Amino acid sequence: MSVFTKVSPQELAQWLQNYAVGDLVDLRGIAAGIENTNYFVTTSAGRYVLTLFEKLTAAELPFYLNLMAHLARHAIPCPAPVANREGALLGELAGRPATLVTRLEGHPVSRPSAQHCAAVGAMLARMHLAGASYGANQENPRGARWWRETAPKVAAFLDAARAALLDSELEFQFGRRTEALPRGPIHADLFRDNVLFLQQPGPPRLEGVLDFYFAGVDALLFDVAVAVNDWCIDERGEIDATCARAMFGAYVRGRPFSPAERDAWQAMLRAAALRFWLSRLYDFYCPRPGELTHAHDPEHFRRILELRRAGVCPLQ
Amino acid sequence: MSVFTKVSPQELAQWLQNYAVGDLVDLRGIAAGIENTNYFVTTSAGRYVLTLFEKLTAAELPFYLNLMAHLARHAIPCPAPVANREGALLGELAGRPATLVTRLEGHPVSRPSAQHCAAVGAMLARMHLAGASYGANQENPRGARWWRETAPKVAAFLDAARAALLDSELEFQFGRRTEALPRGPIHADLFRDNVLFLQQPGPPRLEGVLDFYFAGVDALLFDVAVAVNDWCIDERGEIDATCARAMFGAYVRGRPFSPAERDAWQAMLRAAALRFWLSRLYDFYCPRPGELTHAHDPEHFRRILELRRAGVCPLQ
Repeated sequence: MSVFTKVSPQELAQWLQNYAVGDLVDLRGIAAGIENTNYFVTTSAGRYVLTLFEKLTAAELPFYLNLMAHLARHAIPCPAPVANREGALLGELAGRPATLVTRLEGHPVSRPSAQHCAAVGAMLARMHLAGASYGANQENPRGARWWRETAPKVAAFLDAARAALLDSELEFQFGRRTEALPRGPIHADLFRDNVLFLQQPGPPRLEGVLDFYFAGVDALLFDVAVAVNDWCIDERGEIDATCARAMFGAYVRGRPFSPAERDAWQAMLRAAALRFWLSRLYDFYCPRPGELTHAHDPEHFRRILELRRAGVCPLQ
Repeated sequence: MSVFTKVSPQELAQWLQNYAVGDLVDLRGIAAGIENTNYFVTTSAGRYVLTLFEKLTAAELPFYLNLMAHLARHAIPCPAPVANREGALLGELAGRPATLVTRLEGHPVSRPSAQHCAAVGAMLARMHLAGASYGANQENPRGARWWRETAPKVAAFLDAARAALLDSELEFQFGRRTEALPRGPIHADLFRDNVLFLQQPGPPRLEGVLDFYFAGVDALLFDVAVAVNDWCIDERGEIDATCARAMFGAYVRGRPFSPAERDAWQAMLRAAALRFWLSRLYDFYCPRPGELTHAHDPEHFRRILELRRAGVCPLQ
């Protein structure tokens, strides 16, 4: 989308005095993101991204910022929040909670190969291993509790077939037992847009994972399912077995799946499809007043959900 | 020097299981460093340096490793210790305390220009600002207390003129009051060897500061003096005014000098020369049994000390 909150170079230069990042050289708005305002910031010391939070509050942000700092400390290539001179990761600028993070190199890949999928699987396993020692806890903000709240709000807008599909899937998902699944901090939104690769000769090099603002503690397998539903599909939404095998193969080298996870896999793929169908329905039918949004077509994830209910994708 | 402690790829691959850094791809010893054993380590996730500590103990290391982690969190380009899966920065390998740090790009510059000196000054100011919020405290391990212990050990090896110079300088230094000088964590060994620049068109880009294992809490001005005595000198050891002005100018943009610092400057340049004259005398005359060392000529810093006692270098 675009920049919501304006920050002038003068205002930013003043604010940066509270950081050890040198002098402001360049500031430019980033035309992406619908939840935050983002700027590229160049200083005499390096390249950063400034994020002003439009929805998340100063009380909610420590979970996300500390998680990113924790993962960066474990060599996960994510934006690392820069501490200010008092040691805080979160500041305030232009009346918004604001943070400065390191800027990563690379670009998203729109048509990923099996090699890209393998790189994502390997990184995701590393992220799950590193996350295990993260101390803070926050429920997945788009998890089962949110589904239960949100489904009634969108149900009225659906035709009979879609309403029945939603009912049926929610009933199935709420009937599952998930206690046996390994849990930990998950990214929960690992779409192609959120991973940066370096263009170079040889195998693709994954340089960054972005946007941790849907992260929460949940089944690790949910992260894998979200990624497979976006990275490893053909144009109809069917799972591309070569890409999926590449992702699984790379993932299990870092963290092998448990028997409970293998049992839960098919249902988890459905849960991951449901989560995005539901949020897209919500954004589409229930936009908040005055909100800038570019609602994605909810139908894409309805089709994915139908396919996952019908199909079989072995976790191997 | 060279690798002291041997680590096999098998042993390292096993050890790396405790980190979220993927699989070992390559391991090679680094022929540099006389206090530690260092290896370049490449994994499926990235490039790192493995350091096995030959002298520093597990009790001494947290000050240094936490300082590097703190500075990295403030976007200072130093090697960032990678936390293991329990969250610890320090491990043990081959019977030695061991740490894995991120590997920085670039190379040391043997003939620095005024632009290089400016980049070092700017970075040093940022490091001092960022260090202000570091909580741990450790005396400069090569500070005044160490001078007092070490001088008698080398005095017997010196001719009359040198012995008199050492006595005279120590008396001068111990007579100074330094309480009014701003203090904080300092690198204390910021020689050309310890700074990496990227070769590129345009102004030189400082990519890394290495080797924090002489760091301690002391007068910030001491760090500037150590740097000037190595970066901003001509072939005779005289201060190159252009380089020094470039370094000061860049430094004060980040942290202006106080009046007390301006008053103390000339004495601080002498203190910085004394520190390295003394340590080189000690390494030269009192090598520990069986120690591998390539002792630097102590005379270089005797000359520097004589010049600083005679000369005037305004801090501007």
